[in-house]
Amino acid sequence: MEFGFSMVKEAYDRIRGEIRKTPMIRAEALDEALGCRVYVKADCMQKTGSFKFRGAMNAVMSLSAEELKGGIVTASSGNHGRACAFAAKMKGIPATVVIPDSAPEIKVQNILALGAEVVQCPAVERFKVAERISAEKKAVFIPPYDDFNVMAGQGSAGIEIMEQLPDVETVIVPLSGGGLLSGISTAVQELGPRVRIIGAEPEPLPRYTASLKAGEPVNVPQQPTAADALVSNHPGTKCFPVIKKNVDEIADVPDSFTLKAQKLLLTEGKIFAEPSSAIGMAAVLAGLVKVRPDEKVCFFVSGGNLSISQLDRLKEL
Amino acid sequence: MEFGFSMVKEAYDRIRGEIRKTPMIRAEALDEALGCRVYVKADCMQKTGSFKFRGAMNAVMSLSAEELKGGIVTASSGNHGRACAFAAKMKGIPATVVIPDSAPEIKVQNILALGAEVVQCPAVERFKVAERISAEKKAVFIPPYDDFNVMAGQGSAGIEIMEQLPDVETVIVPLSGGGLLSGISTAVQELGPRVRIIGAEPEPLPRYTASLKAGEPVNVPQQPTAADALVSNHPGTKCFPVIKKNVDEIADVPDSFTLKAQKLLLTEGKIFAEPSSAIGMAAVLAGLVKVRPDEKVCFFVSGGNLSISQLDRLKEL
Repeated sequence: MEFGFSMVKEAYDRIRGEIRKTPMIRAEALDEALGCRVYVKADCMQKTGSFKFRGAMNAVMSLSAEELKGGIVTASSGNHGRACAFAAKMKGIPATVVIPDSAPEIKVQNILALGAEVVQCPAVERFKVAERISAEKKAVFIPPYDDFNVMAGQGSAGIEIMEQLPDVETVIVPLSGGGLLSGISTAVQELGPRVRIIGAEPEPLPRYTASLKAGEPVNVPQQPTAADALVSNHPGTKCFPVIKKNVDEIADVPDSFTLKAQKLLLTEGKIFAEPSSAIGMAAVLAGLVKVRPDEKVCFFVSGGNLSISQLDRLKEL
Repeated sequence: MEFGFSMVKEAYDRIRGEIRKTPMIRAEALDEALGCRVYVKADCMQKTGSFKFRGAMNAVMSLSAEELKGGIVTASSGNHGRACAFAAKMKGIPATVVIPDSAPEIKVQNILALGAEVVQCPAVERFKVAERISAEKKAVFIPPYDDFNVMAGQGSAGIEIMEQLPDVETVIVPLSGGGLLSGISTAVQELGPRVRIIGAEPEPLPRYTASLKAGEPVNVPQQPTAADALVSNHPGTKCFPVIKKNVDEIADVPDSFTLKAQKLLLTEGKIFAEPSSAIGMAAVLAGLVKVRPDEKVCFFVSGGNLSISQLDRLKEL
């Protein structure tokens, strides 16, 4: 079975009563710094504070009555875990979330507050631990990205983008495993075939650039990055062919630009978002993506789960 | 001459090519905390980072050729000064801005960066100093609020509110001298006569509650407030009768609620705004304004000129 627009459309029909249609904000204050007409798709305002809820909710709503009984388990750097915990809570089913030791404490607290069980472990072991829990509890594993239900649910944002800004010329999306970008690119390709679609991944973890060069999904060395929601060290095997087909450009963005862009988005754009959310703007600031002054560019702002203390490092930039 | 809607309409027609039509953001994430359907009129995204630019631009665009030569002078706790400096820059005329010693340094820097001259003095002397400079330089004094051109320009936001959300039921506006509220209330009364209009002023400076009780503008003791853009200790004499006629309720909001609301707006609403901007939400949080769960309430978010360091005090709330 190939991933396609009908799956995204079905997912959107399934979840639209449960998700928020997040605002498309015309952010004129950023036009000069970014050199284009800036539109922010503010999924930091989505339920649970990130786009991840779209995919999690679609996955949970796609479970059978039998599967719902055992509940769900997932592994996540935070936002997907929070989204799964909330989706499970809405359905009244149990959830276990495996989180890397390195995740910000606020993400752990937010998941616990939603009534889910949290298990912490080193980042590289998180999928193995989740698999064990899945077997023990008969809980369905909800992958953070490499799953058609998750990709399709996340892609619902692409349908909204095309509804809210039909004459958009370029869409720039943060990129890690590739669930969000495969979903959005599938919707945008269908609804606006001439729209340029760009993925922005952290330079320390160039898994898509490396894999596209290799012609197949490859692993890159696990590295820390300021874009702490974009830490996958390999593309999703289901995401990779979709992105290969649909996406025009991939930018590998240095962390220094990502933090500068986060500060710009906050102090000039007045939008409170995670560093990972600003990586698309960082790609433009760094000159990695070329734009025209009259070009309508939609920047996908993916999440806003951060504490005020996490802004401290921006003060001296 | 009485202040009326035709002045607001004329002002809007004059300035609409120069100002931003700022977004009306449906902020669902705040619905539960505030107990209503929350809409944010995000004038923190206006040019110069606050609504003040609307009034300043209208005042400058209303000057005669002769007046333009001498330039302008103003006195302001910061945002109006910045707005005047930018309006003057756009017109290529000189500007002097008198600023209280107590204003945050970032506001001073922002005004200097716009090419204006800055004069600092104690807050209570600021109008006297501006008057002296006006005489010396033959510069037109642009009052921060008590002026028909300023009121009318600021009121352009009310026309936008009614265009963007025609079925709004309640509009809550931060209140200091009263320029913004007299302008907005005049537009909203005209375009939506059944809309409830509320002003929110800091409890430490209850100049409108005191004046409405007295039946005329009175001074209240000058006090510090966390809402540091709302520091006038008396209503504008031109604003007072307009507000008396148009406004349904005035709320006197304790600073503790204002800071809580600022944090809520930032961490849940994902919008970066000054404490003064959150005073309307604070009025609801404090129970001073009653709302229904299905009520469409527009909160006017007036400015976003703050440094990241100014968020430090929110960390422990």
